[in-house]
Amino acid sequence: MVSEDIERLISLLAKLPGLGPRSARRATLALIKRKETLLVPLSKAMATAGEAIKTCMTCGNMDTTDPCKLCQDPRRDDKLICVVEDVADLWALERTASFRGRYHVLGGTLSALDGVGPEDLNIPKLIERASSPQVSEVILATNATVDGQTTAHYIADRLANSNVILSGLAHGVPVGGELDYLDDGTLSAALKARRPV
Amino acid sequence: MVSEDIERLISLLAKLPGLGPRSARRATLALIKRKETLLVPLSKAMATAGEAIKTCMTCGNMDTTDPCKLCQDPRRDDKLICVVEDVADLWALERTASFRGRYHVLGGTLSALDGVGPEDLNIPKLIERASSPQVSEVILATNATVDGQTTAHYIADRLANSNVILSGLAHGVPVGGELDYLDDGTLSAALKARRPV
Repeated sequence: MVSEDIERLISLLAKLPGLGPRSARRATLALIKRKETLLVPLSKAMATAGEAIKTCMTCGNMDTTDPCKLCQDPRRDDKLICVVEDVADLWALERTASFRGRYHVLGGTLSALDGVGPEDLNIPKLIERASSPQVSEVILATNATVDGQTTAHYIADRLANSNVILSGLAHGVPVGGELDYLDDGTLSAALKARRPV
Repeated sequence: MVSEDIERLISLLAKLPGLGPRSARRATLALIKRKETLLVPLSKAMATAGEAIKTCMTCGNMDTTDPCKLCQDPRRDDKLICVVEDVADLWALERTASFRGRYHVLGGTLSALDGVGPEDLNIPKLIERASSPQVSEVILATNATVDGQTTAHYIADRLANSNVILSGLAHGVPVGGELDYLDDGTLSAALKARRPV
């Protein structure tokens, strides 16, 4: 006997990652109770985002402009392209504020099981960008998973005959991490890649 | 360097119960990626709910009509009023489909610490409703917490001189529960309230 409008809100919220039916109900109640401070602003923010946000035709990032702000920024280094799987990975790298080159978002990984081939990802555009004489290095920052590494290998193969330097993120002990809690693969990778102090 | 529209969406979503900054980012990405199937419908559902949903002046429930559907339903029993703390509790009882009387939503519990007195809750209206000759029983279904039980006691005091029967939910072993995992308070309550088989 809950109102249809409320039921609809609950079922849509339950589709968000991290929210199940129960937490969607809690979220809906919180929204209804804080109508002026939360429900109305959130509804408007969603409408605005829905109209304004598009995919950057150059790098695959999502932004209100195309090309996106990162592709337009003149202070960024055109020589470096960092290849990531997803916009979330781009955000994670941007939060570190330690990379000042350009990005390229693949939009996923190659997957024989799921039938995802190179044409389904943003790979042709990457090959095109990497062939520009401005670009000197492509950093393959896909996830350290089987699919992510397969995709990185495929891209490395495609770019083998080009003039760009290919690199990947370093593996090793996380900063602040304890050796005892680390998995064997990471630990042996960190040992192999040991550096003079 | 994330777009302001996206940042705004993230910070508003992070205010929902159960979502922190990290899961709000994930939810935002999911929304942007599923613009037509999720972002736009959710934005519209929120706008509709924001306009349509009001608090029922009779029972304190939230619905698109006032009086709410539960108060209007002629098949429900006017003799019974079930008092709950929150709309979420009303929904929980409605899901059981085992109560066919009316509800009364207090909108919280009495709390000396937080400065919540009887006037801040929907209690005067409850006293008024309970004094109607139609009503024969008031079920105090506040939570089994200290605040919930204090509130139930206060209401019971206020209604002591009226003609209604006062009742509370039974305490005992949850259906499907194992004794070994049950807290001592519940187990001794279940023992005290033992029934002939």
